[in-house]
Amino acid sequence: MMGMRYKRDFTDKGLAKFGDSLLNFAFSLALSEYLGRPTGERVPNASLALALEMSGLRKLAPPRSDKHVRGDVAEAIFAYAWLEGLITIDEAARIIRENLSEDVTHFTRKKEAIGKALAVLYREIGKRLELEAR
Amino acid sequence: MMGMRYKRDFTDKGLAKFGDSLLNFAFSLALSEYLGRPTGERVPNASLALALEMSGLRKLAPPRSDKHVRGDVAEAIFAYAWLEGLITIDEAARIIRENLSEDVTHFTRKKEAIGKALAVLYREIGKRLELEAR
Repeated sequence: MMGMRYKRDFTDKGLAKFGDSLLNFAFSLALSEYLGRPTGERVPNASLALALEMSGLRKLAPPRSDKHVRGDVAEAIFAYAWLEGLITIDEAARIIRENLSEDVTHFTRKKEAIGKALAVLYREIGKRLELEAR
Repeated sequence: MMGMRYKRDFTDKGLAKFGDSLLNFAFSLALSEYLGRPTGERVPNASLALALEMSGLRKLAPPRSDKHVRGDVAEAIFAYAWLEGLITIDEAARIIRENLSEDVTHFTRKKEAIGKALAVLYREIGKRLELEAR
């Protein structure tokens, strides 16, 4: 890994942008493996907001923030965890894949299905962040 | 890697969707390392079309196709090469990073700078695809 400077700041826009590409890839990999064929999809902000809520990491986002801000915070958290070596893409994709349900292809239930699978990932990341020296 | 079925068909929509997330991540990683800070950006179709042209892989896209179709073909090619184990994300990001220029932050010259860096990557992928048994 080349030099890349960053801080543990989950409201950082750069971390969120990097995390956006990282998370969409990890999710597309998980979804492709779940469906058994290559495909790709962006993770909805509503799913990220739900994942933060369910994993107890909602407190890391500013109070009364909307789902876009919470989506950015969730992306920054994942980027930070990956940059710190706390989780790999393969492991993240495996956790997401193992927690997806058939609803992921359902028109209206999709967002919730993705959120629930991501919640398991964020619960794990939350544990590892706590263990990390502050 | 779990089972994922695909064919060597660079017009496959699923390969293009998967390649979209893969390429945007590899590029965001390269750009972040180049700039020394986390950031993320989507690869423009114009850059992908230029990269296909410069790398001699233009022939893999249908004749008279527009830049969107050519972008999809370029994404499918990268997805296929990655799935076949012909290139890793780290290697792709390194090649892109080493071939980026300062123009990548320039408002109007950005697309060309990205296309030129991607052309080096696609030239390498092209060589490896030729070597592969058909």
